[in-house]
Order: sequence, then C-alpha cells, then structure tokens
Amino acid sequence: MYYNNFGDRKLPMLMDFYELTMANGYFANGMKEDIVYFDMFFRKNPDGAGFSIVAGLEQVIQYIKELKFNDHDIEYLRSKNMFKEEFLQYLKNFKFSGDIYAIPEGTPVFPNEPLITVRAKSIDAQLIETMLLLTINHQSLIATKANRVVRAAKGRPIMEFGARRSQGYDGAIYGARAAYIGGVVGTATTLADEAFGVPALGTMAHSWVQMYESEYEAFKVYAENYPDSCTLLIDTYNVIKSGIPNAIRISKEILEPMGKRLKGVRIDSGDIAYLSKKCRKMLNEANLHDCAIVASNSLDEFIITDLLDQGAKIDSFGVGERLITAKSEPVFGCVYKLAAIEKNGEIIPKIKISENEEKITNPGYKKVWRLYDKKADNPIADVVALHNEVIDDTKPYTIFDEIHVWKKKKVTRFYAKNLQVPVFIGGECVYESPSLNEIRDYCKKEVDNLWNEVKRFTNPHTYYVDLSSDLWICKQDLIGQYSFK
Amino acid sequence: MYYNNFGDRKLPMLMDFYELTMANGYFANGMKEDIVYFDMFFRKNPDGAGFSIVAGLEQVIQYIKELKFNDHDIEYLRSKNMFKEEFLQYLKNFKFSGDIYAIPEGTPVFPNEPLITVRAKSIDAQLIETMLLLTINHQSLIATKANRVVRAAKGRPIMEFGARRSQGYDGAIYGARAAYIGGVVGTATTLADEAFGVPALGTMAHSWVQMYESEYEAFKVYAENYPDSCTLLIDTYNVIKSGIPNAIRISKEILEPMGKRLKGVRIDSGDIAYLSKKCRKMLNEANLHDCAIVASNSLDEFIITDLLDQGAKIDSFGVGERLITAKSEPVFGCVYKLAAIEKNGEIIPKIKISENEEKITNPGYKKVWRLYDKKADNPIADVVALHNEVIDDTKPYTIFDEIHVWKKKKVTRFYAKNLQVPVFIGGECVYESPSLNEIRDYCKKEVDNLWNEVKRFTNPHTYYVDLSSDLWICKQDLIGQYSFK
Repeated sequence: MYYNNFGDRKLPMLMDFYELTMANGYFANGMKEDIVYFDMFFRKNPDGAGFSIVAGLEQVIQYIKELKFNDHDIEYLRSKNMFKEEFLQYLKNFKFSGDIYAIPEGTPVFPNEPLITVRAKSIDAQLIETMLLLTINHQSLIATKANRVVRAAKGRPIMEFGARRSQGYDGAIYGARAAYIGGVVGTATTLADEAFGVPALGTMAHSWVQMYESEYEAFKVYAENYPDSCTLLIDTYNVIKSGIPNAIRISKEILEPMGKRLKGVRIDSGDIAYLSKKCRKMLNEANLHDCAIVASNSLDEFIITDLLDQGAKIDSFGVGERLITAKSEPVFGCVYKLAAIEKNGEIIPKIKISENEEKITNPGYKKVWRLYDKKADNPIADVVALHNEVIDDTKPYTIFDEIHVWKKKKVTRFYAKNLQVPVFIGGECVYESPSLNEIRDYCKKEVDNLWNEVKRFTNPHTYYVDLSSDLWICKQDLIGQYSFK
Repeated sequence: MYYNNFGDRKLPMLMDFYELTMANGYFANGMKEDIVYFDMFFRKNPDGAGFSIVAGLEQVIQYIKELKFNDHDIEYLRSKNMFKEEFLQYLKNFKFSGDIYAIPEGTPVFPNEPLITVRAKSIDAQLIETMLLLTINHQSLIATKANRVVRAAKGRPIMEFGARRSQGYDGAIYGARAAYIGGVVGTATTLADEAFGVPALGTMAHSWVQMYESEYEAFKVYAENYPDSCTLLIDTYNVIKSGIPNAIRISKEILEPMGKRLKGVRIDSGDIAYLSKKCRKMLNEANLHDCAIVASNSLDEFIITDLLDQGAKIDSFGVGERLITAKSEPVFGCVYKLAAIEKNGEIIPKIKISENEEKITNPGYKKVWRLYDKKADNPIADVVALHNEVIDDTKPYTIFDEIHVWKKKKVTRFYAKNLQVPVFIGGECVYESPSLNEIRDYCKKEVDNLWNEVKRFTNPHTYYVDLSSDLWICKQDLIGQYSFK
C-alpha cells in the first residue's frame, strides 16, 4: 500500500502531554517494568443506534510498528525542564514491547466491551493511549455513520463526497477508508484511491458548466471527452427547463450517434424528490430508461430515508459533509482505562469509580465472547468475561443484566466466539490485516446477520452485552472497597 | 517551523476526482490558458452565530508552494484510462502560476464575502479547489468554535484537550493550531507544541491514580516528581470524601514543607457546579486560596456559560471533544465558485443560479471592503464590490440590503479597509504569514472591536455585508439572463 506508512509525519509526538508526565513519573518511581492492562471501549452508540462498526486497526498497527522518538523530539522534551535525563535516554531507544488484542475491523460492536486490550509495561501502555483512541474513534465514527447511510439507501450505491468539508486532511483520507468499510461504493477523494484502492469517481462541478457559453456547449464538450462515463450536472441554471432538456439533446446528438449511452444526470440543489420524479419521466419519454439519476446536497441517512419514502426516483447518492464529519453526532467516545496491574505475577483488577454511574469501569483482564445462534448465525448476546474463563457452548449458558440482576436469559443452541484476536505479542506484530475489500465484505456479512430490531434507526433493541458472573462479582467487590459512607 | 511542510504526505492528490476530469477536459479543449476567477466564501455562520474566524491560510500557502505530482501519481492517473497523455505530461511539470488574494488568518468574517479569491489558469484554479476548501473550512471551524468557548469563559483560561476524539490526526494537530488562534491558552497535544509552539500542558489521567495502592500515594509520588506544577486529578474515587482531603494532605505534608504550593485540582465528572463550590470552600479552609480548580468533562460554550451562571468556582477549563470536533455544528461550509472568466483581456462575470435562492452566487472579480467607525474602530459594515471600485471614505457612503433594497443606511465618519491581501502573484508567494502568536493577538483585538450585539450567542445582530451598487446591478443583469419562464 502506497500510503501505508506515516513516514516523517512524526505522529509519535501526537500524544497528550500527560502521557509523558506520567511515563516520566513511572520511570522515576521504579515502575517502568510494571505490567498493566488497559481496555479501550465506548459507552454509547452514536445517534442512539443499536450498534457501531469498529475500524482503524490497520493504522494502529502501522503506528505501533513505527513508534520511535527522534533527536528533535528528545530535544523538544528536554527544553521543557520537566523530564529526567534517564527518561529521555530511555525514550530515545523506546520500542513498544507489549501485547495488543483487538476486535477486527468491520465487526459490529456494542457499548462497554473492550475493542482493544493492551497488556504492556506501564510506560508502553500509557504512551500509545492518545493515538489508539484517536485512530479507532475517528475511523469507527465514520464507518458507523457510513453504514447507516448505506443501509438507508436500501441497495442504492452511496458515493463519499466529503473531502472539502472534512476536519483536516486525514479526516478526508482515512475517512474515505472508513466509509468504504462501512459500505460506500467509492469516494471523490483521489488520494484514497491511490493510497487504499477506494474507487475514486467524479465528473464535473458547476464551474465546468459556467465556463462555457451555454450549458449545452459545456455538456457537449464533456460528452465528447468522456463518452463512456458521461454523467452531467444539471442544476447550474434550471433543472427542468434547461438541465434535463440539454442532457437529453446531448444523448441524442452526441452520445447515441457514437453508440454510447448517457450514463447519468446529477441534481445538487432544489426539491430533489420532486425534481427526480420529473427528470425520470422526461428521461423515460426520451427512451433513456437506463440513465441514472444521482442526487447530492447535504444528504444523510435521515434525508435519504425521507426521499425514498416520498418515492423519489434516485438511483444513487453522493453524500458529503454529513458523512465525512458524522454531523449528527461527530464524536465516537472510546476511552482507554486501566483494568488491572500485575504484582509478582498476580493480576490485580483495578476500577475507576465515578459519581456518574455509567463511568464506572469493568475491572480485570478480560475477553469478549459473542454467542451466535447455531442455526441462523445471528449474534444473540456478547459476554464480557475474565480472561481465563471459557464459555462452554455445548451446554446452555445463562446471561443476566448487570443492574437488574433478576433479568436473566438462558441461551441454548449457540456457539461462542472470542471476538478479540492477538495483534502484537511481546512487541511483535502477529496479525496481518485483511485487504480493505475483505474487511468491507466481512462488515456487510456481519451487519446482515444482526437482528433487524438492532438495526432500526429509531428505538433499536438494546443488544445484550452482559458480564460473566465471575466478572460481575469481581466488580461488585471492588465497588464495595471504594464506597465512601 | 518543524511541521511546516507536508513532506512526503502526497497531499497534492488530496483532491476531488472531478478536478482532474475537468482539468483534463479544459486541456483537451484548448482552454488550459484561459484565465478564470474563483471566490471562496461561506453562506452562514456555524451555531447561528454573528461572525466566524477565518484560519488556515499558512497551510494553504505551504500546499501551493509544494504542489507537484510525482511519477507514482502520474502512473496512478494513467491507469484510470481517462486522461490524455499530453495532460499527464503537463501535470508532471505542473506548478501553480496564478494569483491568490486572501483575508488574513484570525480576521472575523461574515457570510457571502470572498475569504479567498483566485485568479489563475482554468486548470490551476480547479486543481487547488479541494485543498483550499478543506484547509480553510477545517481551521476556520475550529478557530470559530474555540473563540466561542473562550468568550464564554469570561477571561478564565481554556485548555484544548481533544486529540483523542478528533477526526483524524490532522484534526488534532491543525485543530490545536486553529484553537490557539481562537484564543485557547494551550493544548494537551504535544506535537502541536513541538510543531507550532502552541503551549502543551498535562498532568495525570485516572490511570495514574489507579496505579498506586491508594489515591494518597498516587498524589504523593506526583507531587514529589512535579512539585512546581502539581495539579491533582481528584475524581477517581470520590471528590469530596477522598480527592480533596488527599490533595490538601499532599499540600500540607509534601509541598508546603518544600516551600511549594499546590497549583490546582481537576474535576472530570459529577456535578461540577456543586463540587467546585464545595472544593473551593474546603481548599480555602485549608488556606489554599491560590489552588486553582480546573474543570473538564464534555464542556462547551453553553455548559461553561451555565456553570458560571450557577456560580461554579472554576478557575480554568479543559475542553475536549466538543471543541476539537465543533460538535454543535461540525461543518464549516465554504464553497469555491466560479465568479468570472477572461476573454481577450475582458473580465466576463459568471453566475450560478439555483432554485435555493441562497445558493445564487455573486458574480465578477471582487474585493471586500470593511468600513470602520473612525473614532471607536468598530467595524460598521462590509461591502463586496467589483475589483476596480474604490470606496472613498472622505465622504458618506450609502449601503443597502440586497433583497429589501429600500433598507438603506448612510455611513459617515468611517475609514475603509480592503480586507484581502495579495498572497500569490504569478505563482510566487508574496505574503509572509505572521507568527501564530501575532495571529492570535490580532484575532483577539479584532473580536474585541466587534459590537457586542454581533457577539452574543443567542439571536445576534446580523452584521451588514452588502453589495456595492455596481455589483448589485451586475448580479441582477445576470439573473435576468438566466430566468427561465
């Protein structure tokens, strides 16, 4: 992959400053070899949805592989007069040496289950916090949003059009990658094609049409240059009175005599429901049943649903700013929390208490199990368990609600899968990322398998993510230790 | 500046694919030397605000300076089988050769005035569209949001804490830069300090506290390591019953014996208004009047206003996800529209008509004038005029509303300033960006000078951005030409 290294971008220094003050503190305090366990998880799905799509692992892997500090970085840190010289020397030779387990990209995931678990020396685990969160938060946000938009279009292709409104260059580049995982068919961002193979497409802006004496001439030049992929933007002056009649003329006068067909027309403003129906009728009357109508203009899953409900005659959508920024809820809230430490080889679970109950963490070194219906392959529930627990899927397993513990459900005829895979062991990468197309296909299959009740936009069913009873007891014990009267 | 080049990042290919299909079309059609004029402008302020802050010009300049296509790019484009070989050869030797005029970074700006005007060959002007929009949209979005948050805090310092929730790496890096222009005092993002000199600060995460046997021990180790900058995170277990008592003990037992003071405590969850008052009282009773209370946890300008209204005792704020993504409205909507073309040395104005009236563009090669009150230095109104018009500020000038033309106002005792400055002339950069601190100071001064009525969050006064009568007539003429009966 051409873009698959961060090169001289210096992303190692893209970290919260407190990672460095803490690391320096652990170093000074003789704790640098202490083994710790961190979980990355999120607390709620964006947009009140029933699930999210995790993405970004391939970039996490790149980052960890390339993570080192150069002389400039060390000099900069020295200038702060806060760091011990021994610590700076240590950083100079730093290489991540821990273990990372992660849920593969494209998997539907749910609140409160560890997407990534890190077992590493205290310094290693702390230094990677910001980049892990940033990478997974960003790409999961966009993959999740894209998947919603794609599902709203009910099979009609979605093109990602948002680079110009994205939040920074990487917002566009990795945003296009994540959107592709979520199911868009392509992007307007050329670099995402060159770098990742996300198919790039594009035809013309209004400026093209304005450049010529007339809309007809502008269309004519375009058709002559691109007879095989001629999609015309028809709303520069007036869709019905000018754009469509000119497009039809182009088809008849330029393309059909060459044995070509008008591939599409695009509407980027106005009442798209109304205009698309009117356009469809005019195109059909001109025997252009195969000419696709493409719509764009601040679309998202809600407007697309609404357009289709109105019977809009749209064959594909270009979705820009509202996808690339996940406008309706532009933050994916993964956190990275200490779950345990090792003392003399023993794993000691740790908890963060909070007056906001939902911010209390799940302690311990954990695994996530997904229980699937044996026959239909639908996921039934996820169970977060301690790492040494094994869910025996040869007999019934009872799940229960963490708060309302009397709410139980006996799961039968299921198979259990451990969702996390080993990615780094002892600092060495042991995982090969699937190709982007494989991730995208896997995502589609897994989302298809979810219950429809989990997938609806309004008031979706809350998928079960329960704690094993061992983990539940461990958590209650720790809460008890920290309850202040 | 250490980060001041994009190096091997290949941002030249970060463009919408249609820029390339159009450029190839202009090339094939003998129009590559045609001179065109494009304006970049936005249509409404985010969050219903009265103004925005423009930012990102320094990165636009870097991009234009470095803009070239390498062999890999050409090979990629060739593989698409859409581009003429002559065009690919032309791209190989491409260097931007046009003129760019722009409003300097940190300036308060208003809808419908050109922030940037490009006069260039058709291909040059088209190829730079995406990166200009992306850069200015992103940084203006964050500078504008940061400025709102800063103003809400009424003089209390704001720290930018958002990297982990930003939309991609550049979202964090350039987001911190833009937030600093908007007035934050520093950032948690280390790289933004190393690269741009935005002061980076940070102390500890909850994990630090959890790593030790007790909160007291965690605080003690921190205080011993950082006696000069000791801010303690007090909400890991219980703010009132554990965090504050332990912080006070640290001050008495560790810091004061060393002749040091406890610099601050940070609250990151719970009822911050209530907790801050209670903490202030306990700290004061312990003679720690100088210990600052820092608040964080999903803050923004609305919550900060509300906290201060409740009399919360907060001395500074850490603002994360809602600033770095501009969560309340995460899109800055600059567009880039053809305004004119040159034919035989004559400038021919161009317009984009739309059934959405607000999408009709202002035609022609233009300038933006800002009229200031001679005595108070407050901006009174902006006037968008044709480029050859001069506003004579020695006599009264009448502005009028574009739609309700009977709404007029005679402006007297004013001076007029042309807001755009030349940045590139004939492809050569003729502008030196001020330092980041100069931009930040200039922004503060210009915002201070705005009327309070323009600055309020709810229903602000709509600042006048009017057209000169020559421009108004030009626009009406063109609308008339394209009105379809």
